[in-house]
Amino acid sequence: MAAHPTIGVFDSGFGGLTVLRELLPRVPGAHYLYLGDTARLPYGSKSQTTIARYAVESARFLVERGAQHLVIACNTASALALHEIREAVDVPVTGVIEPAVYEAQYRHPKADVLVLATSATVQSHAYRTHCAAHGLHATEKACPLLVPLVEEGWIDHPVTHDVLRIYLREALATCSPEAVLLGCTHYPLIAPAIEAALRELGSQAEVIDSALATAIAIERTVWLSDAALSGQASFECFVTDSVEKFERLGSRFLGRPVGGVQLVVLGG
Amino acid sequence: MAAHPTIGVFDSGFGGLTVLRELLPRVPGAHYLYLGDTARLPYGSKSQTTIARYAVESARFLVERGAQHLVIACNTASALALHEIREAVDVPVTGVIEPAVYEAQYRHPKADVLVLATSATVQSHAYRTHCAAHGLHATEKACPLLVPLVEEGWIDHPVTHDVLRIYLREALATCSPEAVLLGCTHYPLIAPAIEAALRELGSQAEVIDSALATAIAIERTVWLSDAALSGQASFECFVTDSVEKFERLGSRFLGRPVGGVQLVVLGG
Repeated sequence: MAAHPTIGVFDSGFGGLTVLRELLPRVPGAHYLYLGDTARLPYGSKSQTTIARYAVESARFLVERGAQHLVIACNTASALALHEIREAVDVPVTGVIEPAVYEAQYRHPKADVLVLATSATVQSHAYRTHCAAHGLHATEKACPLLVPLVEEGWIDHPVTHDVLRIYLREALATCSPEAVLLGCTHYPLIAPAIEAALRELGSQAEVIDSALATAIAIERTVWLSDAALSGQASFECFVTDSVEKFERLGSRFLGRPVGGVQLVVLGG
Repeated sequence: MAAHPTIGVFDSGFGGLTVLRELLPRVPGAHYLYLGDTARLPYGSKSQTTIARYAVESARFLVERGAQHLVIACNTASALALHEIREAVDVPVTGVIEPAVYEAQYRHPKADVLVLATSATVQSHAYRTHCAAHGLHATEKACPLLVPLVEEGWIDHPVTHDVLRIYLREALATCSPEAVLLGCTHYPLIAPAIEAALRELGSQAEVIDSALATAIAIERTVWLSDAALSGQASFECFVTDSVEKFERLGSRFLGRPVGGVQLVVLGG
């Protein structure tokens, strides 16, 4: 492993940039390759077979470009294709689900947790399975409108607050969680609104962000040299569809300008 | 042309079923082949090059299966790929934009019209261009949250009414339309809510549904024999992703059960 490793970060679109955003200051000695498979997004509404095929093609692309570690910064692909990706490439692969569950277990052992996610992630029950394996009891709630609301830019907007109240009221009718896991990489952008809605509904649950938990997990990974933990991080972005749109929307997720994005062709 | 023609209907997903729904009673002597390219939906967020490639592959599939006329029941593909589809296949091709504009012009000549559509359709300015060619002045308004709200099933829901009021108030601040064109095949499901929001905001504009306008245009097409206009319509559905999801959600759009859906593989 090079002193300054190359880390590949993959998502179906923009959301994974919230993971890259947390990685840049925590593992600044690395070079990052970010791939957004934007021509085929969203993965969340597709079948396991299709998602696995797309994710494996994407993972192979990043390894061919020199990635020595892969971060699957996409809850859907982490839920439905992590096994297939690990079979297909010869480098360590970290998804976003395990780190979030570890973090929840560390802070709230044996607790009840609520997982907010897309329909596909909920239907996979990947969070429930991982939680059960770590002594946590998870209730999973599909929130299909949150991604479109974030992409519309309605971050602190009355409609977003209304939708969150509706989803969370439905969820809290069936559980009393100590922690709420954000099981989608778009959700960190509305974490304050989620916390506000929880408090309004009388819940003191702690919000755990899977993007942040994943970056912390990578930071702690033993293979990282000291050199990887200091330096000036650099990154390149690749997309399978409109460069212009990625540069425009991406900065909202990354919290800094996204430029020099390169268009690539994968599979379909 | 056979007395009982085979008509191919294509959309990126479910929305085109609102066009099929209007076609079945109007041209009942036909056999319909419906293709939803669900593995690659939504087209609305993708680039023109990618949309044209996907749409041409889909059109070719339907012609190879025997379609003698193609209905591009997808506003995005009609806006961005109709020319490429017509170049690629040897049968008549009808999109959804021209029929809606004809209908608006027929009912409200030289009028101001408001077009509600996805971001991609608005950015293409296909409606504005067609309207201008027919003496209509169009204001185009992107409504990216309406498709997710319809797919969530929030058809007659307070949040949907709120979102419609927000979008329509923004649009009506810049124009006083005599007609409102539904430039997305998901929108017919919330046509009553759109009409209610218009009235609430003081507009008497008539709502024109492009799905219905397209079915009427096909019904009037001279190549249809008398035989095509009577009989018991039959249809087959093909999708590129989850059959189960298409059968479950599709019935909401078609207004009747959708069964026997076949999975096919196209390009990517």
